[in-house]
Amino acid sequence: MRTAFHDQLDSVFDDLADICDQVRTAVRIATDALLTGRADLAERAISGDAAIDAARERVEDNALAILSLQAPVAGDLRVVVAALRMVSDLERMGDLSVHVAKIARLRTPHIAVPAQCAPIIGRMAEIAESMVARTADVIRERDVDAAAELRADDEEMDKLRRASFAEMLGSEWTSGIEAAVDIALLGRYYERIADHAVSVAGRVVFVVTGEQPTVA
Amino acid sequence: MRTAFHDQLDSVFDDLADICDQVRTAVRIATDALLTGRADLAERAISGDAAIDAARERVEDNALAILSLQAPVAGDLRVVVAALRMVSDLERMGDLSVHVAKIARLRTPHIAVPAQCAPIIGRMAEIAESMVARTADVIRERDVDAAAELRADDEEMDKLRRASFAEMLGSEWTSGIEAAVDIALLGRYYERIADHAVSVAGRVVFVVTGEQPTVA
Repeated sequence: MRTAFHDQLDSVFDDLADICDQVRTAVRIATDALLTGRADLAERAISGDAAIDAARERVEDNALAILSLQAPVAGDLRVVVAALRMVSDLERMGDLSVHVAKIARLRTPHIAVPAQCAPIIGRMAEIAESMVARTADVIRERDVDAAAELRADDEEMDKLRRASFAEMLGSEWTSGIEAAVDIALLGRYYERIADHAVSVAGRVVFVVTGEQPTVA
Repeated sequence: MRTAFHDQLDSVFDDLADICDQVRTAVRIATDALLTGRADLAERAISGDAAIDAARERVEDNALAILSLQAPVAGDLRVVVAALRMVSDLERMGDLSVHVAKIARLRTPHIAVPAQCAPIIGRMAEIAESMVARTADVIRERDVDAAAELRADDEEMDKLRRASFAEMLGSEWTSGIEAAVDIALLGRYYERIADHAVSVAGRVVFVVTGEQPTVA
């Protein structure tokens, strides 16, 4: 039986999926700024974060209203708390996109990523964006199978991170310390975006199945 | 008037302070491992994280039980939700200590931090540990003034981070790419521990005053 509680909860999950779409856009614009050195894109990625923060506040207010007015217990309570955690993850993913954009802005009009590392960082960014896009689908469709697939992507992300270290420490690295420090931090940011995507998707699995997957 | 709700909430805050003590120990041991290159300390910091994760689960279960059984509303509800967020922050600080210890372990028996950078990283670690220690006091004493002081430390942390970049990019850096990458990531980890401490302390301010400070 549908209840006011479930309708309100559906609306919170719709909002979470919308925020996930916003995060995807943020990752894409920050990456474009990074790989092109375009200052205008970096600024757009940085200033766009305020909208994600505002959306997070609305979702939090709605979730608290549900807790206050419906006083859910047991499984229902855990679902609302899961929603609160998902929105924290999503906000953090937005912050990490800002960190990527700030490295881009620091180096503009130059490109922070040396040509030698562009394929690895480009692929990390691609995976991160794709994971965020699929996380939005996972939230919208409550798609437990798609959530499991995200873990495979997360493993590719870890491999790419190791590859980036191998590149920097290899004898052919001619891009110096500054670029290496940028790449180390960029790798960390994209990896964290991926971790949070896995975490959000894992919470959807919990919401659907009642089973808590072991998440990062 | 004291109520069962407030007694249960006090108990949650006592547990949060205890977890904060555990995090402080984790930061200290991880730092000792880092600055001495001792593998046994690195392993201890890494394996110790399971206890923090377990403590987090207990606090979460207790907070959910309060929500379920007491169905608090308005300010009381927000306090319980704040406790849930604080325990997430604290768990994350534990994870970041593990990241520090893993860099130590990767380089052992050598020391990851070159002598040239040891004062800066040592000071960052000292500030991080001190901030975590004072955050435990803030939680125990509901000390709003001490919470405000943490922000000043956080600013020193940011300055040290910039100093570490200047060191690595200066002409006197002779420690190569690998050490620079380690320092960049270590700086990031200590900075994040500090950010989370400020966040936890900020939530205590909110719990006490009802005013949400603008936290990182």
